[in-house]
Amino acid sequence: MNIVLLGSGNVATHLAIALKAAGENIVQVFSRDLTNAITLAEKVNAEPISSFSDINHKADLYIIAVKDDAISEVASHLAAAEGLVVHTSGTTDVKVLSEFIKNTGVFYPLQTFSKSKEVNFKTIPLCLEASDDSQLEVLNRLAKKLSSNVHEVDGAKRKVLHLAAVFACNFTNHLYALSNQILTKNDLNFDIIRPLIAETADKAMVDLPENVQTGPAFRNDESTINKHLTMLADLPELQEIYQTLSNSIKLVHK
Amino acid sequence: MNIVLLGSGNVATHLAIALKAAGENIVQVFSRDLTNAITLAEKVNAEPISSFSDINHKADLYIIAVKDDAISEVASHLAAAEGLVVHTSGTTDVKVLSEFIKNTGVFYPLQTFSKSKEVNFKTIPLCLEASDDSQLEVLNRLAKKLSSNVHEVDGAKRKVLHLAAVFACNFTNHLYALSNQILTKNDLNFDIIRPLIAETADKAMVDLPENVQTGPAFRNDESTINKHLTMLADLPELQEIYQTLSNSIKLVHK
Repeated sequence: MNIVLLGSGNVATHLAIALKAAGENIVQVFSRDLTNAITLAEKVNAEPISSFSDINHKADLYIIAVKDDAISEVASHLAAAEGLVVHTSGTTDVKVLSEFIKNTGVFYPLQTFSKSKEVNFKTIPLCLEASDDSQLEVLNRLAKKLSSNVHEVDGAKRKVLHLAAVFACNFTNHLYALSNQILTKNDLNFDIIRPLIAETADKAMVDLPENVQTGPAFRNDESTINKHLTMLADLPELQEIYQTLSNSIKLVHK
Repeated sequence: MNIVLLGSGNVATHLAIALKAAGENIVQVFSRDLTNAITLAEKVNAEPISSFSDINHKADLYIIAVKDDAISEVASHLAAAEGLVVHTSGTTDVKVLSEFIKNTGVFYPLQTFSKSKEVNFKTIPLCLEASDDSQLEVLNRLAKKLSSNVHEVDGAKRKVLHLAAVFACNFTNHLYALSNQILTKNDLNFDIIRPLIAETADKAMVDLPENVQTGPAFRNDESTINKHLTMLADLPELQEIYQTLSNSIKLVHK
């Protein structure tokens, strides 16, 4: 397939590399910032562009991988494009595209991407939605080249997945960061907690998390909870988080 | 070494198996519940006991791996023991032992244990404390047989590690569970979120979490945050957690 990629961030970068590796042809990489377009375009042997008027209208697929609030504007410049136009957002309705474009869809990779870290695309859940069955079939064929974890997911369920992902990924990572804040403040290195983080995630691979909950709140160990709250006296935001999450654990496991 | 193990829970079980595999001799396994003592004792070829009066006083090492609030009572029954007595708790002061016993210490594995899941002891941080240098040397030699991640950690720092572990492990696992609650409520399977959980933890192995934070709160994406809060309208506890953690992310990354 001839693909135009709009965006040059984390999702765009990982997706472009995976598509190229799967034998697809990235025709153009668009970014408002030409330097960013060039950086990514060079990696996948594409033409870098930074002006909407330079977009090739004859491609088979246009992938909009930009910030959610920029999707609509980018889509408005693709009205003349002949191919299928998809976005990669968890939260954005496909209607944002169909306002301007006939053949539309969603290609949502349920994963967290950092430019500095390679990911194995084969295991990434790819959540697909399309304006009709033939477009869905096009996306399905493409997705299955990249991943063995492809799902057809409507807009409502996709938004639920995105919300669940905020808890499982964004909030989780922030808890790692708060843990590191506590360690750093006491001259302890994050390294010492890393095996625990790895094992906690590993357990969730083989069991449901509610079956393997541990810790003071789970045991209703008020003495330890109170000691911890006292230790957090000079970090009131962390104290509030500790209290809120402990209460929630007690509520779920009462 | 001849070791008496007091306790038959998750920590006791994993520790006993690792000690046995390292060539140590588990003389006795004590549990108030004889059935539990037998179950573990059989695994490590030890004598199961359930009465304090049956404790062998001639062992080299006594490891108390029971609930925090039971440590003191167990220790009170070890006053006649000749060997070194340690507990495995993150939060309990070593003084709880030295009230009754001369040679005391702490052997704290900074890990989460479930009976159903094997762990690789080699990578587990073992945090040691002892009443004097010669006892510390004994613990050090033993610990290094089990793990290549051995640390000398005083009581104050050990309590900080335990607090940090609550954030990195117990709270994190609960967020996985809340994520699953959202998925289940919408007929979605936890499997679809597992690759994201694995990758989030993987990222924390190679970078500091504060460097790889993503998500709506990190991007100050109020539109998505508000959509998510609306979606959580019928789960007020989750709504509160969402709000609290989003505020904390914004505060750290402002």
